[in-house]
Amino acid sequence: MLNFASDYTEGALPEILEALLRTNLEQLPGYGDDVYSKRAKEKILKACGCPDGDAFLLVGGTQTNSTVLASLLMPYEGVICADTGHIACHEAGAIEHQGHKVITLPGKDGLLLPGELEHYLTSFYADDTYTHMVQPGAVYISYPTEWGTVYSLDQLKALRSLTEKYHLKLFVDGARLGYALAGPSCDLDLPVLAVLCDAFYIGGTKVGALCGEAVVFPKGAPRSFFTTVKQNGALLAKGRLTGVQFDTLLTDDLYMRAARHALNMAEELKQLFRDEGVDFFMETPTNQQFVTLPNPALEKLKEHVLFSMWGAPGEEKSVVRFCTSWATTKEQLESLREYLHAALH
Amino acid sequence: MLNFASDYTEGALPEILEALLRTNLEQLPGYGDDVYSKRAKEKILKACGCPDGDAFLLVGGTQTNSTVLASLLMPYEGVICADTGHIACHEAGAIEHQGHKVITLPGKDGLLLPGELEHYLTSFYADDTYTHMVQPGAVYISYPTEWGTVYSLDQLKALRSLTEKYHLKLFVDGARLGYALAGPSCDLDLPVLAVLCDAFYIGGTKVGALCGEAVVFPKGAPRSFFTTVKQNGALLAKGRLTGVQFDTLLTDDLYMRAARHALNMAEELKQLFRDEGVDFFMETPTNQQFVTLPNPALEKLKEHVLFSMWGAPGEEKSVVRFCTSWATTKEQLESLREYLHAALH
Amino acid sequence: MLNFASDYTEGALPEILEALLRTNLEQLPGYGDDVYSKRAKEKILKACGCPDGDAFLLVGGTQTNSTVLASLLMPYEGVICADTGHIACHEAGAIEHQGHKVITLPGKDGLLLPGELEHYLTSFYADDTYTHMVQPGAVYISYPTEWGTVYSLDQLKALRSLTEKYHLKLFVDGARLGYALAGPSCDLDLPVLAVLCDAFYIGGTKVGALCGEAVVFPKGAPRSFFTTVKQNGALLAKGRLTGVQFDTLLTDDLYMRAARHALNMAEELKQLFRDEGVDFFMETPTNQQFVTLPNPALEKLKEHVLFSMWGAPGEEKSVVRFCTSWATTKEQLESLREYLHAALH
Amino acid sequence: MLNFASDYTEGALPEILEALLRTNLEQLPGYGDDVYSKRAKEKILKACGCPDGDAFLLVGGTQTNSTVLASLLMPYEGVICADTGHIACHEAGAIEHQGHKVITLPGKDGLLLPGELEHYLTSFYADDTYTHMVQPGAVYISYPTEWGTVYSLDQLKALRSLTEKYHLKLFVDGARLGYALAGPSCDLDLPVLAVLCDAFYIGGTKVGALCGEAVVFPKGAPRSFFTTVKQNGALLAKGRLTGVQFDTLLTDDLYMRAARHALNMAEELKQLFRDEGVDFFMETPTNQQFVTLPNPALEKLKEHVLFSMWGAPGEEKSVVRFCTSWATTKEQLESLREYLHAALH
Repeated sequence: MLNFASDYTEGALPEILEALLRTNLEQLPGYGDDVYSKRAKEKILKACGCPDGDAFLLVGGTQTNSTVLASLLMPYEGVICADTGHIACHEAGAIEHQGHKVITLPGKDGLLLPGELEHYLTSFYADDTYTHMVQPGAVYISYPTEWGTVYSLDQLKALRSLTEKYHLKLFVDGARLGYALAGPSCDLDLPVLAVLCDAFYIGGTKVGALCGEAVVFPKGAPRSFFTTVKQNGALLAKGRLTGVQFDTLLTDDLYMRAARHALNMAEELKQLFRDEGVDFFMETPTNQQFVTLPNPALEKLKEHVLFSMWGAPGEEKSVVRFCTSWATTKEQLESLREYLHAALH
Repeated sequence: MLNFASDYTEGALPEILEALLRTNLEQLPGYGDDVYSKRAKEKILKACGCPDGDAFLLVGGTQTNSTVLASLLMPYEGVICADTGHIACHEAGAIEHQGHKVITLPGKDGLLLPGELEHYLTSFYADDTYTHMVQPGAVYISYPTEWGTVYSLDQLKALRSLTEKYHLKLFVDGARLGYALAGPSCDLDLPVLAVLCDAFYIGGTKVGALCGEAVVFPKGAPRSFFTTVKQNGALLAKGRLTGVQFDTLLTDDLYMRAARHALNMAEELKQLFRDEGVDFFMETPTNQQFVTLPNPALEKLKEHVLFSMWGAPGEEKSVVRFCTSWATTKEQLESLREYLHAALH
Repeated sequence: MLNFASDYTEGALPEILEALLRTNLEQLPGYGDDVYSKRAKEKILKACGCPDGDAFLLVGGTQTNSTVLASLLMPYEGVICADTGHIACHEAGAIEHQGHKVITLPGKDGLLLPGELEHYLTSFYADDTYTHMVQPGAVYISYPTEWGTVYSLDQLKALRSLTEKYHLKLFVDGARLGYALAGPSCDLDLPVLAVLCDAFYIGGTKVGALCGEAVVFPKGAPRSFFTTVKQNGALLAKGRLTGVQFDTLLTDDLYMRAARHALNMAEELKQLFRDEGVDFFMETPTNQQFVTLPNPALEKLKEHVLFSMWGAPGEEKSVVRFCTSWATTKEQLESLREYLHAALH
Repeated sequence: MLNFASDYTEGALPEILEALLRTNLEQLPGYGDDVYSKRAKEKILKACGCPDGDAFLLVGGTQTNSTVLASLLMPYEGVICADTGHIACHEAGAIEHQGHKVITLPGKDGLLLPGELEHYLTSFYADDTYTHMVQPGAVYISYPTEWGTVYSLDQLKALRSLTEKYHLKLFVDGARLGYALAGPSCDLDLPVLAVLCDAFYIGGTKVGALCGEAVVFPKGAPRSFFTTVKQNGALLAKGRLTGVQFDTLLTDDLYMRAARHALNMAEELKQLFRDEGVDFFMETPTNQQFVTLPNPALEKLKEHVLFSMWGAPGEEKSVVRFCTSWATTKEQLESLREYLHAALH
């Protein structure tokens, strides 16, 4: 069965498994105090140009969003995001479970546009009753977004300017960060991102790691963040598991190389859809592509290929997502082309 | 200063203060175990036609919504409401503070229409990823709504039918319940309401009490609800304070008489607006009326009359709310007419 | 039935009911923005010698403890208290419901002694694993305690010194504050208390109000505390209810006079127990007295007098609590003497 | 540096890394829907003799305790445990963060004895005010305990009998389960454990996995537990990571063989301490041994060997913990003997 359902269908980059094997019997302290975790954090902070910041290695995306936001928000504050934001939709209410409202604003192709944010904030504070409402405390964006789209540097700067003006924290969900930064048209990099936001993470799980998300607080972590991580069940006893992985990912540019491969495969995937006359629902510069396919074709295709339904199916046609990853091969794309052709004709 | 800002600008109905005075020095047990609280609950359950149900006397509206929903929802569940629902807007995130998402659907004039609810529920369960999302656990409606509108019996039945089909609890915020039930066109009453929902409350604060909301669970309260009330800081040591008030409100139909007076005053208020050519933003059968007034007129009016801004002010005109209550007098309406006339001309 | 079960068995001081009656039909803004609430707060801050502090009027004790601690603690912090502390025992887990651990230390007659606190704190930070534990964030004491005992000024200063050294907030539960401060042997007053702690409250419910606790933040309230109050369901729409009461309590020294009466009655109660040869379990300088009585005598006494069982009953004897209050009369004490004598002989 | 600080100082059992390598490029669905996770769960339920139960694979211990208890408790309920229970001490308040009180009872060598539990429960319900307190909802025990001790079958049966009588859930933290079950004197096994409790887990992290805890609900999982796992950030996108590991651990008795090795090493460790005349603070049948050593000896030993301080250091002597694991070698024990001898003499 061919699988384009997501970018987490394989295990890990070979370099990562090799490193885990190589270090397996070393006796190391737990809870992130091992040499690999420390080295990984140093490399991360260096790559981000913020050696005085703090880095932490967590396990998964929802966990990271939930734990970081819990540390950035006061109990009376909520977090603003686009209505398509992962925290608003597919995290089973993890943020509300922390006690915080997710304040959703209408998004545009997955993006929270600065104009929309400004409109909300000015209206909010113009309302006499605002002290009776959840106070905005942070802005959450995903980069790239859940729709595979990417903020421009200007958009990010405009968001930053607003969050500064209104004393909000800016948090960037980088579960697929590599797939944005490695794009040829991307006009920012890790150090620029570090300047622009209060916290972000370099997603490992979806860019070649077995698990792991590297959180960066460019200006320093909230007080007792280690305890917050523990309290949220996000601390690995064998911290080496994420330490070794990120140490490897940050060596010889492996993270970005893996992401670049996925983007190259995505370009071929897009061409393949175009060749077959498939309608794009959302054509993106990243590794996720959203297309609209007739339901009968989807049924046929399902016999050989896995992909993701996006929302509830339509009556005649449905939106589906295809992902490439660091592990996608040209052979897989060729097979997809054949199955797709057969399904459509 | 004339005050039409809300229905809680005066103290209490004279009968209530008299009863508090009369019983003041009686020695009574605390925490709702006094004879007045018990009698009030009996009268309430009798009036609702559910003698085997349970009633509890809480203090305020936000507290009641938050405490009751905490008892109806499992931690992984959220509550559905119209986007204008009080719990979604003006309760400072009390529901999220309990750990639950407020799932907002587009409302129509403050109402959550059955079609909208059905659309949401069918789409939700048709989505492959629904176990990754907050599970719907209850539906919240306010009756009357925050816009002063009122569900018809048919609408309520349709909502009930959906909540049964999808195993959801139906909770009715009755902070202003009297102002709906006492209306001449209202086609339901307490016993019908008790049949249709899992929990509702008879709002005291806004219908003539100093404080107090009487929660009714027609089919019996969730287990240990008393402890839940205590845990949420909603248990009065001197339970007599709400006990005496509701005992009085349920005597000689005082609650409904007080509400009816407010509705009569609201009819005169509407006529007064019509006479002055004021545009209604929302004309309602209850004690809240929403009108659009030019900003200069509002400025003038503000010198003599208090009213509520509704949302952020507009550039030229703004929406404002005027409320009547059990305490509104014809003299106050006459004064309002004069100030309004002067402000508009 | 004679009732010594608690200090909240009557309604309110007559002066309070008169004030509620007198102001009943005044039209006042809601949510504490009325003139009485404002005046009450001013009087309170003046009485506490901290005009630049902040005061808030909440409704009940558990609610106040829970809301204030929620505003003082970070999510990873807990609150330290004596094992007999109200928040540790009789608040149904309200603090844990806010997400915070209650860290209990062995108390002495209800008091958290400075030595015990210091031992805990030095041990805590000497433990290598302390970042894996709940971080101490605040110290809670009740004054007077649940056992009716009272901290000396020296003890309070020693606690304060420790909380400053370890960067902890000091919060004083003053649900029965008057019954401590009005005592002839009490060596502190409101201004001294205000200097020594970060937050405390002047309990109304148990000292003659229908409801209401006046929270004082001598150095200013935590940011957005108003919203925190709302979020916790502790904001009255008719804020006048607590405003008028505290305005009255702070007029002509009514609060302290009411407390002093209770203490005078408590002295007579103690003498009465001594006269009858009853064993004190805890003899206190405040309005609560704990005595040990044989179970058969308790059974007889119960036919005529209400009192509080303290913990589970013993096999032969049980500990019970008798309270006096602002409303206790000499006649009631005389009746108690007779019933007690009859029950014991 | 020799490391006896814990049983998580190495990576994973070689068989596990081999399996991860072997399956690395297979394309598998995420979130536990892969063939390895499914097979692991089947094997686990079969080994536990409860094929109709439910199994879930989570990541770490604190996370598992917190997530499972959140699913077993109602919001007004707390969990009872020994005062040395991991959830009471070293989980940074994760349970309170879920809103639940941890009710600690005095333990005996880490064990919660049935008599202590019974005393608490009978006292609790004999107290008139029990509805004002946190309601007991579950009992938590760790097996083996934090002190390396092990409940006998009779003790477990007695605890079970009490939890049934009082309608409490019984939850067993098995972070080190293998180290109890593999002991020669252990009188219970997985199927017996499954009969006796409502939920338990087979700890992977400390018995040879990189990460992973296998939760078993012998009588079926709480409703929507999958969503609860997601909400708590405990769901791996690459569920294969824990799936492959537990599939391997449950193959050819690997889990028990690994545990047995650690116990054999622990016997040699104990002999070594005896040979050197070291005082046991707690001598246990499992892989954790607690000894008391003079501080100067500890200082010398620290130069070559890592171990865990247990609590704050004493003035002259301190309690320290030495652990063996699946990876401990005879050579390491020999080195330890030499360093210890040198440090003591």
